Amino acid sequence: MSLSARTVTPEYHALLVDTIKTLAIDAVQLANSGHPGMPMGAADMAAVLWTRFLRHDPGQPSWPNRDRFVLSAGHGSMLLYALLHLTGYDLPLAELRRFRQWGSKTPGHPEFGHTAGVEVTTGPLGTGFAAGVGMAIAERLLAARYNQPGHRVVDHFTYAIVSDGDLMEGVAAEAASLAGHLQLGKLIYLYDDNQISIDGATDITFTEDVLARFAAYGWHVTRVDGHDAEAIATAIAAARAEETKPSLIACRTVIAKGSPNKAGTSASHGAPLGGAEVAATKAAMGWPAEPTFLIPEAIVDGQASARANLQAGREAWEEAFAAYRRAHPALAAELQAIFDNDTPRAAFDAIPSFPSGGAVATRKAGAKILEAMVKSHPVLVGGSADLAGSNGVNLAKETAQSAENPGGRVIHFGVREHGMAGIANGLALHGIRPYVATFLVFSDFMRGAIRLAALMRLPVIYVLSHDSFWVGEDGPTHQPIEHAMALRMIPDLWVCRPGDARETAAAWRLALARQVGDGPTAILVTRQDLPILEETREDIACGAYVLWEPEGVEAAELDGILIATGSELALARAAAHSLHAKGRSVRVVSMPCWEAFEAQPAEYRDEVLPPAITRRLSVEAGTTLGWGRYASACHGIDHFGASAPGEELARRFGFSAEAIVEHYLKLA
Amino acid sequence: MSLSARTVTPEYHALLVDTIKTLAIDAVQLANSGHPGMPMGAADMAAVLWTRFLRHDPGQPSWPNRDRFVLSAGHGSMLLYALLHLTGYDLPLAELRRFRQWGSKTPGHPEFGHTAGVEVTTGPLGTGFAAGVGMAIAERLLAARYNQPGHRVVDHFTYAIVSDGDLMEGVAAEAASLAGHLQLGKLIYLYDDNQISIDGATDITFTEDVLARFAAYGWHVTRVDGHDAEAIATAIAAARAEETKPSLIACRTVIAKGSPNKAGTSASHGAPLGGAEVAATKAAMGWPAEPTFLIPEAIVDGQASARANLQAGREAWEEAFAAYRRAHPALAAELQAIFDNDTPRAAFDAIPSFPSGGAVATRKAGAKILEAMVKSHPVLVGGSADLAGSNGVNLAKETAQSAENPGGRVIHFGVREHGMAGIANGLALHGIRPYVATFLVFSDFMRGAIRLAALMRLPVIYVLSHDSFWVGEDGPTHQPIEHAMALRMIPDLWVCRPGDARETAAAWRLALARQVGDGPTAILVTRQDLPILEETREDIACGAYVLWEPEGVEAAELDGILIATGSELALARAAAHSLHAKGRSVRVVSMPCWEAFEAQPAEYRDEVLPPAITRRLSVEAGTTLGWGRYASACHGIDHFGASAPGEELARRFGFSAEAIVEHYLKLA
Repeated sequence: MSLSARTVTPEYHALLVDTIKTLAIDAVQLANSGHPGMPMGAADMAAVLWTRFLRHDPGQPSWPNRDRFVLSAGHGSMLLYALLHLTGYDLPLAELRRFRQWGSKTPGHPEFGHTAGVEVTTGPLGTGFAAGVGMAIAERLLAARYNQPGHRVVDHFTYAIVSDGDLMEGVAAEAASLAGHLQLGKLIYLYDDNQISIDGATDITFTEDVLARFAAYGWHVTRVDGHDAEAIATAIAAARAEETKPSLIACRTVIAKGSPNKAGTSASHGAPLGGAEVAATKAAMGWPAEPTFLIPEAIVDGQASARANLQAGREAWEEAFAAYRRAHPALAAELQAIFDNDTPRAAFDAIPSFPSGGAVATRKAGAKILEAMVKSHPVLVGGSADLAGSNGVNLAKETAQSAENPGGRVIHFGVREHGMAGIANGLALHGIRPYVATFLVFSDFMRGAIRLAALMRLPVIYVLSHDSFWVGEDGPTHQPIEHAMALRMIPDLWVCRPGDARETAAAWRLALARQVGDGPTAILVTRQDLPILEETREDIACGAYVLWEPEGVEAAELDGILIATGSELALARAAAHSLHAKGRSVRVVSMPCWEAFEAQPAEYRDEVLPPAITRRLSVEAGTTLGWGRYASACHGIDHFGASAPGEELARRFGFSAEAIVEHYLKLA
Repeated sequence: MSLSARTVTPEYHALLVDTIKTLAIDAVQLANSGHPGMPMGAADMAAVLWTRFLRHDPGQPSWPNRDRFVLSAGHGSMLLYALLHLTGYDLPLAELRRFRQWGSKTPGHPEFGHTAGVEVTTGPLGTGFAAGVGMAIAERLLAARYNQPGHRVVDHFTYAIVSDGDLMEGVAAEAASLAGHLQLGKLIYLYDDNQISIDGATDITFTEDVLARFAAYGWHVTRVDGHDAEAIATAIAAARAEETKPSLIACRTVIAKGSPNKAGTSASHGAPLGGAEVAATKAAMGWPAEPTFLIPEAIVDGQASARANLQAGREAWEEAFAAYRRAHPALAAELQAIFDNDTPRAAFDAIPSFPSGGAVATRKAGAKILEAMVKSHPVLVGGSADLAGSNGVNLAKETAQSAENPGGRVIHFGVREHGMAGIANGLALHGIRPYVATFLVFSDFMRGAIRLAALMRLPVIYVLSHDSFWVGEDGPTHQPIEHAMALRMIPDLWVCRPGDARETAAAWRLALARQVGDGPTAILVTRQDLPILEETREDIACGAYVLWEPEGVEAAELDGILIATGSELALARAAAHSLHAKGRSVRVVSMPCWEAFEAQPAEYRDEVLPPAITRRLSVEAGTTLGWGRYASACHGIDHFGASAPGEELARRFGFSAEAIVEHYLKLA
């Protein structure tokens, strides 16, 4: 099933593998930092995959129908950089020489958006595994929706190399269980089973039967000698032939294979081999000690020819896509928009308006908004970690993603928060606009993957409901205290805590406007009803704005400011009314999105929060730490919650207009 | 193997089960909030376990050798409360009537330290599973260390009831894999296999072969009818007989069994049955509609007799322990101290001093401190998530915990951060003083379990190394930015970021002084060397102190203050020296532990940070959000890091004495 027209001879394979290995050890040695063992041990399996199976075009890294390759064991980055360079991606040898240096294209761990050909940022183990599952879901979903008889325009595999460490991580376990359930037949993972981790042999902690576990998840599993190219190729071919199960191919390897004194030891994992051992390794493989970063002529020629074949493959697809476009112009236009990560204008237009008056929980408002939007947004796809109804993402009219219904929009993630967030990253990397939901308190379980979404600037949307102690009876394990602020601290993640249904619509508008290259958005919504206010805005792109203040009062004459978010906005407004009755002119600022506010020009920020007005009380049912950025005093909660009805907790914890007034009146 | 002398007749079992069920549905109905389905479905298995196997003494809930019972499916709290009441714990019926109300002993999810007999706070799924693994490790470790021929003073089982949701969570998967590896033969989990989760039937997302997966982990697995008392009892007896494998007994149950219209449906999971269905349920089981909270006389009598037997069991152990004490007084004294959670004075005394001068990474200083302490602290037990050497917890002279060496102090957790932190909670709940280690950036993976440690006020110690961008080449995936501050936000968790080796010793002293009832401590240490300063203190119980200021300057005359932590302390000190040379009198405050500082009297805090001195620049290589609490301006980093040598990043990111001076001079 080779995709290159040329046959890969055993000699060529061996030479390519040695080239990869020596590039890796030279780069790590020059940087005096890095992980040589993994690239050396995994070079065989990677070479087989990349020369015989992987369908991509180094000249056009964003070709939509390319196979995806995930290096989940991101510490082996030099393996990927060597492959990218040798395959013809825009990664000159000079960059390999600048491995792990400031501004290079070869950072310590692969970074999406930074280096052409890197599909996903990896390093935190297990997360690449989960992202690959998301990519495979995306591929199958798009194929199911857009392919037509005679037109298979979406049709590719998702491959990964995963390590022991990946397979020990819970996030990978969660994603693996779901991948098996969904029967993702085009997901093929090569397990670099080298029996070594940083602390020593894996048998000190990892003696489970990995293949039996994956078989229990519903995966197709095989074991091969990871240095036998033909065996690897046969296993990959069998995995491709297995259409109803994801595949795990355990490749038994020797870490740092080729290093006479460090092969098979944890010493080779995370430190340079050292000059003497590099020399010994090259000598043992019959490789010249100098020059470093040597690429034999035969490899240069062979790879150039392979590249031409890969390009021809991509061009054939372009022709097929042109034919598809002629036959199915509407579908093709929609699919092209997905490839381009365009957000349909109609999805914004579909966001409903909420008239003021009445009261509704923002999670319920969110449910209405989502229901309205999905009709106009083909790839607004997502679900919940088993709390769909509670979170307000239970799209009753939409169907669930499954093997039988691969085009289904709703993903039942199960009680697997971290896996869900990791999968969302893979969906976003593949043109899907994912939303994923759980209780805000369980954002703790997803932080690893949320941070990666932020680092990759992916527009994942997190719907996080039950956003404060107002949750009530479920008690402190289910009541967020520190979570909103802890999320605000993640760079490039934007956090919206809307004050009513109108601001919830605005939060979705803001989230939808964020694109690949911007970053993720969290929308924090309430369990309890909130009044829909007259003054709230349907656009919060400004981040914060003046909600209310006594009429006719100049900014300079203000007595002070209440800055509120979410469920406390109406309380702050009522408190300001009371204070006005007492002769104090207090402005209420609604601040649903700090990050958007901080992106405004200084003039606007100073208009909303005039620097001269220093008596400022923040009002938020969460930790006060952090509010010092805007407020001189804080009305919040810095201890764990308790189990009781929400209204009672509000009385006990001081969340009423009266308590806010009292607090304000005590301020200097 | 019944522990109660009385035989549990089928009639008694049926009556007890119906009593549990009706207590649960009455309490949920009265609270108008809660989860009736799980207690009803799991009442059979719980009744079998509690009447025939569980060895405990309701009159003395802290009896050290009691069997542990974990309700990992914490939403089924009424099952546990019913059992505690019926068994004779200090939980009056009046408290069951106040289910989920303010100040009751019956919060929505079970809370350790709040209700006698609750072994662990549960609710966030999967975490109770992991805690139980920690308890079983603790039991085996103490048994291995302290039991003597003819004296089995530590000898009990750890049981849990776990749900589908628990088994979907990655934290449980990680803990299960380690439990299998460690061959924890006295760990027995009953799986409430009711095939229902909140979003519907589990087959929408959870179709893996759970038992095959656990068999792959090395567990003993069986499946029984979860409503067949004899089958359950037989399975538990077999699990007890299996001494080298943990056991998972899948009990196929019907959620809300006994409810004519809601049994077997997700409708019964998280909402009251409703008055009509409660009546129908009672009618179907031949139970009077009124009074509610009815406990038949036969149950009252039967449970009283069981309680006498349980008490006799505990008293027999007391005698056995007295004999042990006579035979092995030194061991008995040590074990008693463990039961009492006493920290040996000698462990504090063993903490080494570091003379000023020279430079050492605080992770390496931490390694020396830990090595010195363990000799004097029998149950200072822990390890790393596969980064022992990097984190500075690689105790070369200590042995690893394993089936062959169950007394081993070092636990190789594998790349399983969340499982590690969850297991640490179980260790701490069982008299062990656990320390667990990983990179600070991966604290994200453990937050769920860290938060529970804080909520339970357990003295777990987190050693978190590589604590800033100074990590260098590994790049942004491995460089914490927001993490120190995000940890500071968790209530009752104390975070220490020591500025040199001396403050690291002080951080360990502070951590060790925290006890059950106080809470956990995180110690953040560096990868890179830090100079050992003259002025740093060996005791940081004050949280923050004046490190340096120009001699002879009155506090009121200060020009300003630099407040620094960790690796930036020496930079701030150098900056203050430079500023002094420029005629500016600037104090340097070292603030290694915010929470300890906040616990000081106001006078002390005002002495360190005189309110009149408002020009205050914080200096910390992390997010600035939060520093507004103490500082008027912040020298920090609010964006992701990059891959390059640490020194180069410091130049690029402005972390040098010169850059701090420049920043300070710009302040108003």
